[in-house]
Amino acid sequence: MITLKLDLGERGYPIHIGSGLLAQADLFAPHVRGRHAVIVTNTTVAPLYAEHVAQSLASLGKQVVTVTLPDGEAYKNWQTLNLIFDQLLGAQADRKTTLVALGGGVVGDMTGFAAASYMRGVPFVQVPTTLLAQVDSSVGGKTGINHPLGKNMIGAFWQPSAVLADIGTLQTLPERELAAGLAEVIKHGAIADAEFFTWIEANIDKLNARDPQALTWAVQRSCEIKAHVVASDEREQGLRATLNFGHTFGHAIEAGLGYGEWLHGEAVGCGMVMATDLSARLGFVEPALTARVRALVAAARLPVKGPALGEDRYVDLMRVDKKAEGGDIRFVLLNRLGQAFMTSVPDDDLRATLRAGV
Amino acid sequence: MITLKLDLGERGYPIHIGSGLLAQADLFAPHVRGRHAVIVTNTTVAPLYAEHVAQSLASLGKQVVTVTLPDGEAYKNWQTLNLIFDQLLGAQADRKTTLVALGGGVVGDMTGFAAASYMRGVPFVQVPTTLLAQVDSSVGGKTGINHPLGKNMIGAFWQPSAVLADIGTLQTLPERELAAGLAEVIKHGAIADAEFFTWIEANIDKLNARDPQALTWAVQRSCEIKAHVVASDEREQGLRATLNFGHTFGHAIEAGLGYGEWLHGEAVGCGMVMATDLSARLGFVEPALTARVRALVAAARLPVKGPALGEDRYVDLMRVDKKAEGGDIRFVLLNRLGQAFMTSVPDDDLRATLRAGV
Repeated sequence: MITLKLDLGERGYPIHIGSGLLAQADLFAPHVRGRHAVIVTNTTVAPLYAEHVAQSLASLGKQVVTVTLPDGEAYKNWQTLNLIFDQLLGAQADRKTTLVALGGGVVGDMTGFAAASYMRGVPFVQVPTTLLAQVDSSVGGKTGINHPLGKNMIGAFWQPSAVLADIGTLQTLPERELAAGLAEVIKHGAIADAEFFTWIEANIDKLNARDPQALTWAVQRSCEIKAHVVASDEREQGLRATLNFGHTFGHAIEAGLGYGEWLHGEAVGCGMVMATDLSARLGFVEPALTARVRALVAAARLPVKGPALGEDRYVDLMRVDKKAEGGDIRFVLLNRLGQAFMTSVPDDDLRATLRAGV
Repeated sequence: MITLKLDLGERGYPIHIGSGLLAQADLFAPHVRGRHAVIVTNTTVAPLYAEHVAQSLASLGKQVVTVTLPDGEAYKNWQTLNLIFDQLLGAQADRKTTLVALGGGVVGDMTGFAAASYMRGVPFVQVPTTLLAQVDSSVGGKTGINHPLGKNMIGAFWQPSAVLADIGTLQTLPERELAAGLAEVIKHGAIADAEFFTWIEANIDKLNARDPQALTWAVQRSCEIKAHVVASDEREQGLRATLNFGHTFGHAIEAGLGYGEWLHGEAVGCGMVMATDLSARLGFVEPALTARVRALVAAARLPVKGPALGEDRYVDLMRVDKKAEGGDIRFVLLNRLGQAFMTSVPDDDLRATLRAGV
């Protein structure tokens, strides 16, 4: 097991990465106080792993309640969040109750927001079971739900007490979701570590084949990069925004098709190709880099072309993105492989990218 | 105008108290950044004061949107909160948008929670127009909504950027709401300042008659006490919990009758009589103090007897209170006039108070 530390002073926490962590009660013990522990999971993950976690918690003497949500981005909304509150209140869960998010990014984001909001804040532990959640969404304290008019528009910054990334759970992950997670792994290389990007290129077949060692390094290096960025800019005043590379395009795709049609990682994969294309159009990088990013995204079995929503619709959808300010869309672009920055872009170039990339 | 300061380091803010503040654009100016300012108010307050505030904000060059909610505790729920999000997203309000809560405690709590959650947090200004909001709920950053199973169960600690308490707005307040606000004024005396309690006894007729000078002092002294308590214990780990004097009984009354039947302040008024009775039963104070609290609550035209919900129902409702831990109900009691503490109590004494006080 590898343990990283996200350094946020009082709100800092460990990120444990390894195999068989779900059954290790001692990893939960320091982070689960109070009498109640509430596992929040979904209908897909529950039959696979809920019992392991429940046993670990029960062995610590906790009263364990399991809340099983419907599975999918389409359910990342208030109605589903309310199912958590209903059960917390039904179980008379008090202020010291710890929530345990067992599942992918949707479960983690919703459980985190429930923890942030229940009685104005209770602790929670992230137990990500998808690659996307292990390399990205479980780390950093962004929580929330979608609104019909925008993704993650309602939420909170609320840090978990610990992250337990059990690599073993990736063996049961559907192939499409594995690929979606690789999008964020590629992103970390693209924006922060050219050497890591090159390593992913060289090891993409192993990653696709779920080689445990390759996956462990992909998760570890991703978490290191993310933890470093979050520690230096928790509330996304600057550097942290670069983690949204590919996301402005990606969010437009997700919102335009309706959440859940494409997986988040699929939209981001495609969005990174578009963002690199835009970087090249504006002269920040060579066009060859676009080809390289496109090839790696394709090798990870992710889409490289966006859906035909229409140029104007793309622009409208991007304007309501959280990074927009006063209607001005801000993009994360590359100025070389391994380095990203934020900027506004001329409308013509944006539209050229949309025409080329869709 | 008097200006107090709530000292919370980076999150500290001014509390301005005086007459005619709504029209003073310069008081808003330092706290309203970005292009958009969104006034959140209700159907009762909007026709009286929304235009004043909108003009002040417009004179600063802001694009002003006004969101008018239905009035009353019964609407302090997710559906109403969502009306705010719908309009924020509809207006493409960005991350720098400032919300302005114009109204009583319900508007302030909901606007604050909307500000805490919109795009994971935007700034907001409290412009309380009821006595209750001016002396209590607008100060301290507690925000939230009710759940059918409990009051304020979903929310956040989110501090405003400023509080503008315009005493002039109290002249249009319905008598019942004035009385409800006086409950919290009395509470501040009871838990923290015996001299202030005595001053309220001596000036209750002036307060009932809305004498501006008396009201100003009542608001100022209340805000001083509350600001001091919040500054020393923002997240209610200890001292801040004493501000819930009368509230454990009060919340049970509100929940038992259905939110909105009794005003919060009415339930708290009655709850303080019960909590003092319980303090006396346990020997912490003389029974004469119960009579004194009862007399002042009555003089403020507030109920002194609880509704007949049944003993068991009261106990059940109190068990789900946020202050409960592991089913153990924690009460704020007095150990003398001007000093409060938290404790569990024997069931028999609690039930004796319920039998006597209902």
